[in-house]
Amino acid sequence: MKNYRMTICYEGTRYDGWQRQGTTDQTIQGKLEAVLSRMCGAPVEVQGSGRTDAGVHALEQVANAHMETGLTAPEIRDYLNRYLPADISVEEVTEAGPRFHSRLNARGKTYRYRIYVGDAKPVFERNYVWAAGEPLSVERMEAAAEYFLGEHDFKSFCANRRMKKSTVRRIDSLTVRRHGKEIWITVTGNGFLYNMVRIITGTLYEVGTGQRAPEEILEILEKQDRQAAGITAPPQGLTLLKVLY
Amino acid sequence: MKNYRMTICYEGTRYDGWQRQGTTDQTIQGKLEAVLSRMCGAPVEVQGSGRTDAGVHALEQVANAHMETGLTAPEIRDYLNRYLPADISVEEVTEAGPRFHSRLNARGKTYRYRIYVGDAKPVFERNYVWAAGEPLSVERMEAAAEYFLGEHDFKSFCANRRMKKSTVRRIDSLTVRRHGKEIWITVTGNGFLYNMVRIITGTLYEVGTGQRAPEEILEILEKQDRQAAGITAPPQGLTLLKVLY
Repeated sequence: MKNYRMTICYEGTRYDGWQRQGTTDQTIQGKLEAVLSRMCGAPVEVQGSGRTDAGVHALEQVANAHMETGLTAPEIRDYLNRYLPADISVEEVTEAGPRFHSRLNARGKTYRYRIYVGDAKPVFERNYVWAAGEPLSVERMEAAAEYFLGEHDFKSFCANRRMKKSTVRRIDSLTVRRHGKEIWITVTGNGFLYNMVRIITGTLYEVGTGQRAPEEILEILEKQDRQAAGITAPPQGLTLLKVLY
Repeated sequence: MKNYRMTICYEGTRYDGWQRQGTTDQTIQGKLEAVLSRMCGAPVEVQGSGRTDAGVHALEQVANAHMETGLTAPEIRDYLNRYLPADISVEEVTEAGPRFHSRLNARGKTYRYRIYVGDAKPVFERNYVWAAGEPLSVERMEAAAEYFLGEHDFKSFCANRRMKKSTVRRIDSLTVRRHGKEIWITVTGNGFLYNMVRIITGTLYEVGTGQRAPEEILEILEKQDRQAAGITAPPQGLTLLKVLY
């Protein structure tokens, strides 16, 4: 049994997210496992660096799987790309050390959230952006972003109310940039709670519209209460850009 | 009754093309007519500058319709954008002169065809490109493109064998450019026959792979026979960029 590391790109629109579910195989993990199990003639379990929600995309998700196969790593990649649907692509397969674990070894992640602020309907980008429909002040959002930097308890930015493990995370970088007709929020941190990037985005959005002051972020963090933060931005604007090891 | 001119952007993936069909309303024209007829409380006929095939997109299709309504032109636009699906957008509605006719008054059109030549699967662009899967020589394709310029009988590049009207058209510009991991073929002419851009693209593709010599284009034009030309490139790579008046 060798341990293979895979870099996977997908458009999440048609899927129920990354994680395999009992009742449906309409998940990225499920699709990968189905093709690899057929390839190996035995059940294969794929371990991802973390889940992505339904409708969320990934440029470079990382996963690993222990498999017995006569194929080389590039042949595994080609086999996957031949049999996976057109909205999932495997960019790279390499042999990893036996102890490599895509989730446990991940040191951090970078996500991007795209908010569309143009006048016209984003016809070609509609599955990749949130057309929020309000004028937003990038300056206010940038000012608010500062407060997220560093290590904090992000309980207010976690959708899982029954989270028993630590909700302390570190954000290393959080930028808000105008990019043509879009505003791109790009965040790197050592780990993200359930819906954390989408709640940060929804809160930054409320700062951008003027509903909230930038300095309220401090208060929200202190309250450790999901109710204190802003809305959860919709999934389709979010893309996992990179997993850091 | 006023005559309104509309500029329409759409992703053609989900549609059976521009032109309304008896049995289905899954056409762009059909969707526009349904919303406008409801708006006016009376049947409205929409005239487009020309058809686009199933799967073909448009950045700025132009259409016109004679309608009786109390709404202003911008209000018509907003009404359309509210009730049309997310993959059709009306960029502009203006009052036109009573004799403006989007098809008969059109002096020309610009189309773009995108061929994807990267190694990875084009996950996010898969509905907008042809992943042709062969290395292509842009230089050879550029050399071939020269032969199309000017006025020619394009019968060899017309999918309609029973075409009784003239198949003479004028191509004013035809460029082949590398654009990142894609090759963009951009063509402007005074009019295009059925599948003409897709057959030109398929033929340029065969020149790009080395199957044909650039100077064969002359021969193909002279033969006035669809069989002489190359394959019909698939629809999803094609976008109507602009209609010229």
